Amino acid sequence: MSLIKDLNWRYAAKNMNGEKVSQEKLNTILDAVTLSASSYGLQPYTVVVVSNEAVKEKLMAAAYGQKQVGSASHVLVFCVPEIITVDMVQDFINHVATTRGLPVHVLDGYKGMITGSIVPLPHDQQQHWSEKQAYIALGTALAAAAQIEVDSCPMEGFSREEFDKILGLEEKGLKSVVIMPIGFRATDDATAHYAKVRKPKELLFQHVN
Amino acid sequence: MSLIKDLNWRYAAKNMNGEKVSQEKLNTILDAVTLSASSYGLQPYTVVVVSNEAVKEKLMAAAYGQKQVGSASHVLVFCVPEIITVDMVQDFINHVATTRGLPVHVLDGYKGMITGSIVPLPHDQQQHWSEKQAYIALGTALAAAAQIEVDSCPMEGFSREEFDKILGLEEKGLKSVVIMPIGFRATDDATAHYAKVRKPKELLFQHVN
Repeated sequence: MSLIKDLNWRYAAKNMNGEKVSQEKLNTILDAVTLSASSYGLQPYTVVVVSNEAVKEKLMAAAYGQKQVGSASHVLVFCVPEIITVDMVQDFINHVATTRGLPVHVLDGYKGMITGSIVPLPHDQQQHWSEKQAYIALGTALAAAAQIEVDSCPMEGFSREEFDKILGLEEKGLKSVVIMPIGFRATDDATAHYAKVRKPKELLFQHVN
Repeated sequence: MSLIKDLNWRYAAKNMNGEKVSQEKLNTILDAVTLSASSYGLQPYTVVVVSNEAVKEKLMAAAYGQKQVGSASHVLVFCVPEIITVDMVQDFINHVATTRGLPVHVLDGYKGMITGSIVPLPHDQQQHWSEKQAYIALGTALAAAAQIEVDSCPMEGFSREEFDKILGLEEKGLKSVVIMPIGFRATDDATAHYAKVRKPKELLFQHVN
């Protein structure tokens, strides 16, 4: 039951000690993002991994000065595409066919399901759908970081518009949605010692036996 | 790096063998949901855990007959509230105060942040926000299930309206958003042997060093 132990160890770190996360540990977290589930397997997100000090400083300012952004070793910025196009779906289908050694046409039905359900949506609803997929990856990344004792802080409290500008996301057709600074908790982060607050199980779960 | 191994083992199981998930393993998955991160710690979701055979049959019909729903040991139905009210935020704040042994008034600023940002949103945007939080919990639950070798299948392909009716969610002010049947993969589930398809890392990640 070690993941449960790891999740109990995890908390939203409000300040990091400046120590760098090793390439090996970063790779583990990025592997978890890569392996995360997504609807249709489409993975409609991009993660910008920021370690540049000057850029982190700008991001911290755009996150209302919250120290865990500036003091993090890396800031993972989860982004979604502004639009999901038929071409993007076709690229995905081609990749599935190549990976599985299939002729592309056997995936026509699969392609039709995705283009029929997602592509016709208004762009804000496409983004909403993509955001949800990104949040699965966020949950997976948080679990993976905890397992290797890397601290993190999932955050929605930042200016998405300013992040988009700082990272040049608009030109890439991307929008920032949620961020995850990673690093190692600072010894003076008092919140590390706060009792964990969770909904009582009888409110969180309902059983139909 | 064992979570990575577990995530490689995981796939979206399309049929289960009917074996029951033990109470101990179910508890581990529900503990992971409980310990999942959420914005402000508000946990704006409820998970309905269905093991009743007749209800599972109805849910399978409302999920276009997909076998993993009917053959699952349990179906976890992630739900969000139709509305987030000031009263709900107050209940949460009271719970934080009790858990941490604090007078409620020291949390006035915290309460103001939540009521100021989430309560004024139109209900569809509140639901969107709650859904994203539920998807973090989904990601955490998928990781936890994989770690204890319980199969699962995250699914958006079901009629939310019919699920809401079958489970009487409207009367509870809830809406179904995503489901996670759990169990053990059937030996005849050919999809278990499909090569895993994931975006190449150079497309999934961008580095700002």
